Amino acid sequence: LTAQPGSRLTVAELARRLGATLVAGAGTGSQAVTGVAPIAQAKAGDLTFVASPDFARHVATTAATAVLLKEAVPGLKAAQLVHRNPYFAFAKAAQLFHPPRHESPGHSPKAHVEPGAVVAPSATLYPFAYVGARARIGERAVLYPGVYVGADAVIGEGTVLRANVVVENGVTVGSRVLVHGGAVLGADGFGFAPGEGELAKIPQIGKVVIADDVEIGGLTTVDRGALEDTRVGRGTKLDSHVHIGHGAVLGERCMMCGQSGLAGSAKLGDGVIVGGGAAVDNRCELAPGVVVGAVSAVTKDLPDPGVYLGFPAMPAGEFRRMTARMRRLGELEDRVKALEAALAGAKP
Amino acid sequence: LTAQPGSRLTVAELARRLGATLVAGAGTGSQAVTGVAPIAQAKAGDLTFVASPDFARHVATTAATAVLLKEAVPGLKAAQLVHRNPYFAFAKAAQLFHPPRHESPGHSPKAHVEPGAVVAPSATLYPFAYVGARARIGERAVLYPGVYVGADAVIGEGTVLRANVVVENGVTVGSRVLVHGGAVLGADGFGFAPGEGELAKIPQIGKVVIADDVEIGGLTTVDRGALEDTRVGRGTKLDSHVHIGHGAVLGERCMMCGQSGLAGSAKLGDGVIVGGGAAVDNRCELAPGVVVGAVSAVTKDLPDPGVYLGFPAMPAGEFRRMTARMRRLGELEDRVKALEAALAGAKP
Amino acid sequence: LTAQPGSRLTVAELARRLGATLVAGAGTGSQAVTGVAPIAQAKAGDLTFVASPDFARHVATTAATAVLLKEAVPGLKAAQLVHRNPYFAFAKAAQLFHPPRHESPGHSPKAHVEPGAVVAPSATLYPFAYVGARARIGERAVLYPGVYVGADAVIGEGTVLRANVVVENGVTVGSRVLVHGGAVLGADGFGFAPGEGELAKIPQIGKVVIADDVEIGGLTTVDRGALEDTRVGRGTKLDSHVHIGHGAVLGERCMMCGQSGLAGSAKLGDGVIVGGGAAVDNRCELAPGVVVGAVSAVTKDLPDPGVYLGFPAMPAGEFRRMTARMRRLGELEDRVKALEAALAGAKP
Repeated sequence: LTAQPGSRLTVAELARRLGATLVAGAGTGSQAVTGVAPIAQAKAGDLTFVASPDFARHVATTAATAVLLKEAVPGLKAAQLVHRNPYFAFAKAAQLFHPPRHESPGHSPKAHVEPGAVVAPSATLYPFAYVGARARIGERAVLYPGVYVGADAVIGEGTVLRANVVVENGVTVGSRVLVHGGAVLGADGFGFAPGEGELAKIPQIGKVVIADDVEIGGLTTVDRGALEDTRVGRGTKLDSHVHIGHGAVLGERCMMCGQSGLAGSAKLGDGVIVGGGAAVDNRCELAPGVVVGAVSAVTKDLPDPGVYLGFPAMPAGEFRRMTARMRRLGELEDRVKALEAALAGAKP
Repeated sequence: LTAQPGSRLTVAELARRLGATLVAGAGTGSQAVTGVAPIAQAKAGDLTFVASPDFARHVATTAATAVLLKEAVPGLKAAQLVHRNPYFAFAKAAQLFHPPRHESPGHSPKAHVEPGAVVAPSATLYPFAYVGARARIGERAVLYPGVYVGADAVIGEGTVLRANVVVENGVTVGSRVLVHGGAVLGADGFGFAPGEGELAKIPQIGKVVIADDVEIGGLTTVDRGALEDTRVGRGTKLDSHVHIGHGAVLGERCMMCGQSGLAGSAKLGDGVIVGGGAAVDNRCELAPGVVVGAVSAVTKDLPDPGVYLGFPAMPAGEFRRMTARMRRLGELEDRVKALEAALAGAKP
Repeated sequence: LTAQPGSRLTVAELARRLGATLVAGAGTGSQAVTGVAPIAQAKAGDLTFVASPDFARHVATTAATAVLLKEAVPGLKAAQLVHRNPYFAFAKAAQLFHPPRHESPGHSPKAHVEPGAVVAPSATLYPFAYVGARARIGERAVLYPGVYVGADAVIGEGTVLRANVVVENGVTVGSRVLVHGGAVLGADGFGFAPGEGELAKIPQIGKVVIADDVEIGGLTTVDRGALEDTRVGRGTKLDSHVHIGHGAVLGERCMMCGQSGLAGSAKLGDGVIVGGGAAVDNRCELAPGVVVGAVSAVTKDLPDPGVYLGFPAMPAGEFRRMTARMRRLGELEDRVKALEAALAGAKP
């Protein structure tokens, strides 16, 4: 949790950058902050935060130099940075102290660039990166070793493709996108027509279009469309091992957790959250604000926001009541048995 | 959806190639077709198809030059290609207009071939492809950048390994196989014997054998066998993120959808379909024609064809009835309560 | 199942190495064993084993030269190696006959090593392996083609990274670890703070620490910690497509089967087994000796050892009773209906 060399900000400067109101505490606003830490582990020089009441008790005793919180607390020794969304502001602060680092700048002569490709001078190509014919690599983009960018693909400005990422032919990746190791963008979708003793391949001639500010986890796949493109909206985040089927369309700022999947042509509205291991069936459309719980499976459209759970997925309250009833089934059977006995006994 | 440059066929020629009967409509059979499209988006020059009654209403108004359908419709302007399986024929037509393209033919000097390997002259090795000792690469096979073919592995004719595919030592891949980015064929199966404070590895000395005309999705694994080989049958198709455990045997023309898995030594008969996220337990045998629904889990042999759902998987009808009953459990509890009250009231 | 060339041991020597008691049968202890096989397929020259009563009937008729078993059987022709854990001893014997083989020793000039990295002279770097700045590669470690070891990462002695494995910056991998193709260690965990129309990234500044003797399956991910490290304990084994979330901590000798996952900050005690496709939610702690069944989902702490099943996971007995009751629900509905009819009929 030590800060990057050279990262050192006064609490006043930090408040200004985060859009927080400074309540200076024992200092004058010139105290130096050099890192970030959770409140229980924070020490002098650290910025920390309180986002939930569970941690509020730590505020009085924390050794942190500064604390982000929603409302000022009287008599604190630490400098207070009051912000309406302390966790969000903490994320921004952590980014200040831990910016992404990329070594080996420049175009390695051990990378391979096919004729007709255009690589921006400020882009980085590590050894063993491959850029296909007519592909375009934007300014400040970084291609780590083993990255494959296929023919006619486009990589936006400041986008980082970590080791062994595969971007197939014709795929478009926006700006400031981060793709983690081994992810595959644009493999063929799964489309076959059975007949005459074979499964005939439907050529997958759609593309993949990744908007700006997307993050894609390690070993995640976004398959290319069959006839239409597969699209991931601005600011959406995909965890590791996620599968996006052909022709699926994700809105902006969605989150899909580890090992979840969207089948072909599924559609997510803005801000949809899909829990770990959850699945959404072919062509299902989920309204903005839908949250699908972990390991749940959506089998039909969900036009209303809210939390859904189970297989098939249903509103969370309904699922919880159903689960509770399932656990009482033995008791219910006993009650029916008692009724049968009573009725048998009551008969003449 | 534009056709590849140079792809241009008359409807008469198309009918002949697809084995369809031509009903020429307004033309003479010499109208040119240059691409394929779904019926609602098709325009002049396109071939389209109608496979389900849902889309039949579009036939009269489509701008397509030609349409594949099961039975001729009187008075259409479009040329009609009558075929008993229009979707299958459409797949074949789409293949004509969108054949796979591979650039950079030849053996790149930036690829690496170990001594004793044999690479066919017509095969393509992209930069950073690796061919291990004594491996054999067949005619017209294509190894994209970052592909690893281990020692003694065999890659058949016309087989395409896209970027970063791993084929481990001794694995055999048939002809005309397509393996998408990052898939791993022949990693060790998961076998350990607990004892004396450790988990002792069972060496995985079986191989993986992939038959002809198989397609394997991005980031899918087929693990090598412990003592016997893991086998994938002719024409079988695996989607992305599929896991095939050690010693599993898949028949011909099976389909396994995204994120599904077969545990060790499971066996699939010909034509088995496993839905997305579904799982089949160790050693379970599924008869030809079994369909396992999405996110379901098979825990025992399924000797009869049919659709199975749930965890543990059961016949689909049984699952649907059970699910409906679970949703009525609250009502059933109320009825039992009412009976109890009635009986208590009825007592003297 | 043929033995490696040159592997040939007498039964007496084999007994000594395995710590088994020899009952020599028809021979003198000098019979040669050249391989291992399951009892039904074993032939002369093979060692086999009997671990379960199901296979005991084969003992009298096996053609194997030697058999590992728990208690000696009178009158066998095969040499008997008596061991309290025959399956474990068989694993050890199989390791003797099938040791890992690695070709192409040495540092390939086609590998790339950044300045400041230290690669042990006895390590193997295959072509297209990449070693980042200041990374350290231990004695006898093997980096297959396409392996990426990031800056400041540490790879222990005798550790094998198979093709296209990614070890991110600062990750530490212990000794004698085996990582299969395409696995990714140290991609960013999935942490974002929503606010002001975006999902702000929480920089993932923890590391990944893999202890000695771990095995990691193909295409498995172990994500780096947000603030604290993600840790995998000594001798733990992960299958293919497993996902370990940021900050999770696994004890020693755990087993996680294919496509299972641990969400962020989950904790597994020593010897925990997680079945295929199973999931453990954020921050859940599982006591040593917990076994989570396949495709089950743990949603709270499990402080007691035992087998758990279902979603949410519950003790296996409870799950099995509940499942049986769910299948009898139709019958229960009929009984309630009969009661209602009887009561209606009983009324005056």
